[in-house]
Amino acid sequence: MIIVIHCKDQVGLVAAITGVLSKLEINIISMREYVDMNDRYFFARLEVDFYPETQTLKNSLLQSLPRGTSLDIITNPGKKILVLATREHHCLSDILVRHHFNTLGAEIGCVIANHDNLRDIAQRFNIPFFHISSEGKTKAEYENELMEKINEYEFDYIVLAKFMRILSPEFVKNYLGKIINIHHSFLPAFIGANPYKKAFERGVKLIGATAHFVTNDLDEGPIIAQKTIPVTHAYTLSKMINSGKEIETAVLSEALKLVLEDRVFIYQNKTVVFE
Amino acid sequence: MIIVIHCKDQVGLVAAITGVLSKLEINIISMREYVDMNDRYFFARLEVDFYPETQTLKNSLLQSLPRGTSLDIITNPGKKILVLATREHHCLSDILVRHHFNTLGAEIGCVIANHDNLRDIAQRFNIPFFHISSEGKTKAEYENELMEKINEYEFDYIVLAKFMRILSPEFVKNYLGKIINIHHSFLPAFIGANPYKKAFERGVKLIGATAHFVTNDLDEGPIIAQKTIPVTHAYTLSKMINSGKEIETAVLSEALKLVLEDRVFIYQNKTVVFE
Amino acid sequence: MIIVIHCKDQVGLVAAITGVLSKLEINIISMREYVDMNDRYFFARLEVDFYPETQTLKNSLLQSLPRGTSLDIITNPGKKILVLATREHHCLSDILVRHHFNTLGAEIGCVIANHDNLRDIAQRFNIPFFHISSEGKTKAEYENELMEKINEYEFDYIVLAKFMRILSPEFVKNYLGKIINIHHSFLPAFIGANPYKKAFERGVKLIGATAHFVTNDLDEGPIIAQKTIPVTHAYTLSKMINSGKEIETAVLSEALKLVLEDRVFIYQNKTVVFE
Amino acid sequence: MIIVIHCKDQVGLVAAITGVLSKLEINIISMREYVDMNDRYFFARLEVDFYPETQTLKNSLLQSLPRGTSLDIITNPGKKILVLATREHHCLSDILVRHHFNTLGAEIGCVIANHDNLRDIAQRFNIPFFHISSEGKTKAEYENELMEKINEYEFDYIVLAKFMRILSPEFVKNYLGKIINIHHSFLPAFIGANPYKKAFERGVKLIGATAHFVTNDLDEGPIIAQKTIPVTHAYTLSKMINSGKEIETAVLSEALKLVLEDRVFIYQNKTVVFE
Repeated sequence: MIIVIHCKDQVGLVAAITGVLSKLEINIISMREYVDMNDRYFFARLEVDFYPETQTLKNSLLQSLPRGTSLDIITNPGKKILVLATREHHCLSDILVRHHFNTLGAEIGCVIANHDNLRDIAQRFNIPFFHISSEGKTKAEYENELMEKINEYEFDYIVLAKFMRILSPEFVKNYLGKIINIHHSFLPAFIGANPYKKAFERGVKLIGATAHFVTNDLDEGPIIAQKTIPVTHAYTLSKMINSGKEIETAVLSEALKLVLEDRVFIYQNKTVVFE
Repeated sequence: MIIVIHCKDQVGLVAAITGVLSKLEINIISMREYVDMNDRYFFARLEVDFYPETQTLKNSLLQSLPRGTSLDIITNPGKKILVLATREHHCLSDILVRHHFNTLGAEIGCVIANHDNLRDIAQRFNIPFFHISSEGKTKAEYENELMEKINEYEFDYIVLAKFMRILSPEFVKNYLGKIINIHHSFLPAFIGANPYKKAFERGVKLIGATAHFVTNDLDEGPIIAQKTIPVTHAYTLSKMINSGKEIETAVLSEALKLVLEDRVFIYQNKTVVFE
Repeated sequence: MIIVIHCKDQVGLVAAITGVLSKLEINIISMREYVDMNDRYFFARLEVDFYPETQTLKNSLLQSLPRGTSLDIITNPGKKILVLATREHHCLSDILVRHHFNTLGAEIGCVIANHDNLRDIAQRFNIPFFHISSEGKTKAEYENELMEKINEYEFDYIVLAKFMRILSPEFVKNYLGKIINIHHSFLPAFIGANPYKKAFERGVKLIGATAHFVTNDLDEGPIIAQKTIPVTHAYTLSKMINSGKEIETAVLSEALKLVLEDRVFIYQNKTVVFE
Repeated sequence: MIIVIHCKDQVGLVAAITGVLSKLEINIISMREYVDMNDRYFFARLEVDFYPETQTLKNSLLQSLPRGTSLDIITNPGKKILVLATREHHCLSDILVRHHFNTLGAEIGCVIANHDNLRDIAQRFNIPFFHISSEGKTKAEYENELMEKINEYEFDYIVLAKFMRILSPEFVKNYLGKIINIHHSFLPAFIGANPYKKAFERGVKLIGATAHFVTNDLDEGPIIAQKTIPVTHAYTLSKMINSGKEIETAVLSEALKLVLEDRVFIYQNKTVVFE
């Protein structure tokens, strides 16, 4: 059972929280907390033994914590996600395989793509696949169709698994803090389209990938995870792209794991991550 | 001000500790705790605002914690170290430079070496240097001479900065938990002498370095920090040795930082490290 | 078209090789060579424009090179592999997905496992799966059954994708230089069974994986690729195992890529790898 | 003895080069070559046994190679550098220590800084130190004074070891391809001033350092080496800066090693690096 808390910091918060748990004889398996010292803002994630009376616990905690505290008690670790993709399979395949072997930590409602070529891999794993093309549609029309399909499902997160279309602020606004993207560069380097081409032309000695929440500003949302790998002058653009796929897959996978285990807080365009 | 605590785990320990601090109105800047689940053993490190009445704090904490609790309150971050070396300068130079610019986090009592060639670098930084040769002496004679010099100094840790002689169990026993060694391999691979030669002959694709506390068994003590770097078939033994020096320096430096900031607990031949 | 050469070194070898290519007007796309200086042994891998008269090229090269030269001209990049597995899916799934999307660089003849649970994933990708149990059989009986099935196929390499049974020297002898294994530690640390358990007990600060050719001595064959990742005191054994799976998958995938692109030479229990 | 060559690519270049060496009975210890496929441009670095008649070798090679070939034969590995710094010691200290122990691969003519606090460390290693302040001077006046001092020395490279002033295009023009800078970010992210502050505000999960040649455009010159290290939400700006110093030192050190061993070619705002 996971408890996540964030609120204005004050003296005695940890004492208050652990005091409540101690009184209810709830054993703490692990606890992580962090205080943003600039804003005196407090974050905590506790893993505790299962306690059936969630509402009692919630009330006791809220009584001991400052007004305006955000408190969540997660008793059922199963999350739900939708996956948006375009043509590239590597991130999607990785998600489908993990889901199939019950190591993803989430159920997949469906896969939606603006091309049809990934239908086969989704179907091999019995996941509903919808091809919603953007061709011949205005952005608004396309996104409306997308939202209609999305809204047929219950979900905690929408995962952009190399979804290569830019979503409008209107779209994003509907799912704020719920859209996770993998960008194929070590942001903020190479924002926008064709990052490998830009990296190749700049002659960098490392390439990277960044998983982040999507906000209005393209590639500017809170970063969850990043990785880089070394490259040399001998890497062609195509070799960079292929090597990059390996870290894109790894970084998105790591970010999903962190988010789906309730280890990530969004705070002021940054993330607090309790690994 | 740092508080380090370890004791048998029981429900409510964190509540007890933070309760005491809250009552005395001591602000917690950061807290890290860990419970070894096999042994139900508890570790905590707290950084708190300075509180002048250390003894009051200590008594209050001990009253709230189980019998047999180990508790330390560190008000003065300045540690003292001695450095033992042989011929290679890289780890020693790094320590001397950091000390010189006040970023080591410790005072250096002296440098003792079984060769004389490092005298010059020690003296350039005004650190006393003693050449205690082992030649023509029994191990016991040599170590007695060493201990005599060591015991002239107050110190928290003895740092073996590429000290290439094996210390006897009798010697080690006198300074248990106080000797930090840098071994030039990713232990437990290549225990003992000439690890790079063994690595070269085995054809490994990475080499490493390990900083650890010294116990009776050669290279078997609690590991503090480790790193590896890739190598290729084209690395000669001599190139391996040179590349290795870079990570030896980096790993020892990292381990010293962790130990000197009271972030490392020794527990059952392992370490708990609050980075 | 790939040319791989190894032979005793002598002055003028590169001149001889490139002279032949120049005369036949074959363009060199890339060339890598390496000389083992201890044994004066020469290795080269050339990628050249396609040249239809392979036999002419072969003869010309052999005439210009020392007696006893090993020379291979690979015109068809398609390799064939068989995969042996036990219960764990991660390495197998990765191979199946890459194969499915034509990025593996090999055809998969079949998957053979000593348990039946991986049948489903193999079948989802239309790869023949054979369950050959070792239960109730002597090692010889089991391996004979294995060999019978293996020998029904043409193949270049047998990939042990977390195959958890130790193969006898008799078995290995039949496929020398053709069996690739992934071992779940940074060899030579933690040879043999349960490396994560040993790593956990030793309290290492990094865990690793090693892909190697299999020889008679358990986990002692030529290393192709290795990687490590950091771990902390807070990693349980089970978390180590799960994190380890990520690098096992990555290291085996990298090793396969190198081998299947003819970038790896075995030489005296080491490898020369032209990345 | 090192031979470095670059020229327009054509069939038979390697054959021509190695043919000349073979004829003169010069043994090749190692050879690296690379062809930029877009521009059909050829680069090679050969390490060969010493051959006293350099001019004969040079003529023979030039006769066999295309017009306009750039050819350099380096018989004396000793390079000369000048170091420019500001206040931070870490990169300078590292260079001084390596120089002192003869592992830098270069002589240091002098250290020039726009503050006086590094005089002490330079003098401890008997390296001439000049404090040239920029205060109260126009940029032109300051740079003229700098150039006057610089031009008193013979040197191959000017190393900006955390030199925190921006050099004018006029200054840079005088030493094109000869100025090496360490920038405290993974370029092209966080170009310009205060990269750690920007990194902190952006909430990145890794920080980096980049060594590059200096050209007219700020932080836009050919990249020699780059590295990143992970950071977390718990890193304060000051901790980022301190951790960053470790990789700044390591990256500059690596870049210097590569450049001083004639392993780096500048080509079209990129580098070709033969490690």
